[in-house]
Amino acid sequence: MRILILGAAGMVGRKLTQRLCRDGSLAGQKITSLHLVDVITPATLEGAPFKVERGTLDISDATQMPALLTAEPQFIFHLAAIVSGEAEQNFEKGYAINMDGTRHLLEAIRLHANGYCPRLIFTSSIAVFGAPFPEAIEDDFFLTPLTSYGTQKAICELLLSDYSRKGFVDGIGLRLPTICVRPGKPNLAASGFFSGIIREPLAGQPAILPVSDKVRHWHASPRAAVNFLIHAAGLDTKLLGARRNITLPGLSVTVAEQIEALRQVAGEATVRLIKHQPDAAIDKIVAGWPQNFNAHRALDLGFRAERDFAEIIKVHIEDEMSGK
Amino acid sequence: MRILILGAAGMVGRKLTQRLCRDGSLAGQKITSLHLVDVITPATLEGAPFKVERGTLDISDATQMPALLTAEPQFIFHLAAIVSGEAEQNFEKGYAINMDGTRHLLEAIRLHANGYCPRLIFTSSIAVFGAPFPEAIEDDFFLTPLTSYGTQKAICELLLSDYSRKGFVDGIGLRLPTICVRPGKPNLAASGFFSGIIREPLAGQPAILPVSDKVRHWHASPRAAVNFLIHAAGLDTKLLGARRNITLPGLSVTVAEQIEALRQVAGEATVRLIKHQPDAAIDKIVAGWPQNFNAHRALDLGFRAERDFAEIIKVHIEDEMSGK
Repeated sequence: MRILILGAAGMVGRKLTQRLCRDGSLAGQKITSLHLVDVITPATLEGAPFKVERGTLDISDATQMPALLTAEPQFIFHLAAIVSGEAEQNFEKGYAINMDGTRHLLEAIRLHANGYCPRLIFTSSIAVFGAPFPEAIEDDFFLTPLTSYGTQKAICELLLSDYSRKGFVDGIGLRLPTICVRPGKPNLAASGFFSGIIREPLAGQPAILPVSDKVRHWHASPRAAVNFLIHAAGLDTKLLGARRNITLPGLSVTVAEQIEALRQVAGEATVRLIKHQPDAAIDKIVAGWPQNFNAHRALDLGFRAERDFAEIIKVHIEDEMSGK
Repeated sequence: MRILILGAAGMVGRKLTQRLCRDGSLAGQKITSLHLVDVITPATLEGAPFKVERGTLDISDATQMPALLTAEPQFIFHLAAIVSGEAEQNFEKGYAINMDGTRHLLEAIRLHANGYCPRLIFTSSIAVFGAPFPEAIEDDFFLTPLTSYGTQKAICELLLSDYSRKGFVDGIGLRLPTICVRPGKPNLAASGFFSGIIREPLAGQPAILPVSDKVRHWHASPRAAVNFLIHAAGLDTKLLGARRNITLPGLSVTVAEQIEALRQVAGEATVRLIKHQPDAAIDKIVAGWPQNFNAHRALDLGFRAERDFAEIIKVHIEDEMSGK
């Protein structure tokens, strides 16, 4: 069985690749080949138990898409996107990558011959929702993005549903929580500090908190994100009906609760590395973000996230710091 | 003050044009010119109290858009679309006209110089919603289209909000109820029978009812539709916040209630012209459609529709049959 990953060089893409190499199978089927593409060439893989092909792709260029489908991969993970901050700064690039890119993929699948209809797992975002919100957002809350990024993801969700309804693709869209703790360097996402205030102090580095510690947000670990993708690949999509996009479970905590969990796991000296430096611009962006969901539907479908923030910190220490 | 109407040759476009000619003003401003475009040349106008220009436009061709904005119309009514039945039969044409066409317009406005930011009134549709529904759909119900047409309208709504949020356009999207009684010939819309069972019998012609008379649906007259557009042009869009798309008020009635109103207005002999011929295909499409809304937000903003179906029939008799 053949798998294609778009956006394979990103953080989630790399973790998914590692997991597939470890498992050797997906949705109960043995993997025979894995095709990794991104705007930069994904890193080489050592000792994968199947054939691995790596390539570059400009997802905004429709002409590059059909060649990706020559081998007719049965599973496609579409993780490619530019982040919220960049999509907000560069309007045209955001639409070209995040909206047109997804449409080009869907069109290439539709126009491919042989009745080809792959399972397409698309990473959407809770940014499809914008304030004002109820205390917890239900599964039938409306699409109200307050960013171009959220708008682009919401449009992709609608396309995914329509192409699935028409039988062109077997799509499932996953509204990922904010992934925390992100490993590595900060990216352009305005949500970066949610990870930074944990990751940097654990590494003995200072970190800046640009918002009040009363800010509440919705989190899941990178490990949970990969579990979501794997679970979605094996799901019976008949259970989704026409509603192909799902708000995933996560953990609703305040920044104060994040910091308290860090104190429990790593002690007071680590917490002291967090400096509060209010940033009105980030504060304004974050004020429009979702804080809490009732993800009944995803829970009923078997998706699972962490249950407390200490667990999220422990996942980071295990997966990124060799358990130390 | 200058007005541009896209889709001016359609039923609503023609009625809006007549109304503007009669009023001579819009949103408290005197109209100096009216530019009418459609895929076919809109009909000539007799005795308009302002300059009228007429032209053809292929809305799916992005290169034709910028020229429409040379005169910098302050108000743009974007009514151009292919109907649900045609968009479902012709997937590519539906996306090219209903989605790309709107995007081309928004892009041409964004890229126009001089800080140009017109009021754009866009006709969306209740087809952005698909079953299963609550008993009455609230303003915060989610976008769940079950047709390509509804998907395309929902995508345009999201684009309209994002372009408005960025300050490129001052947009307002109106989810029109099913317009009933439509004058003239049936079109390809699967909803055509809702008008046909009133219009044809009133004209002494037989009409076919393809669904059960228990089917409930959401209606407003063509006159109400024009009132919605006019009201939207004069609205303070600050009241909309970031949520630029509105479910309009309408009348929720069953087909049996429609027929009973026809009996009251025109008598038993007229009602006898309706023949029940079940059509499974139409039945299936209609089963996915909204039946009832609580349009609190639009009512608070001053939008008004008819209060009973006899009133809708009387509007048809007054406006289309010279009151007879």
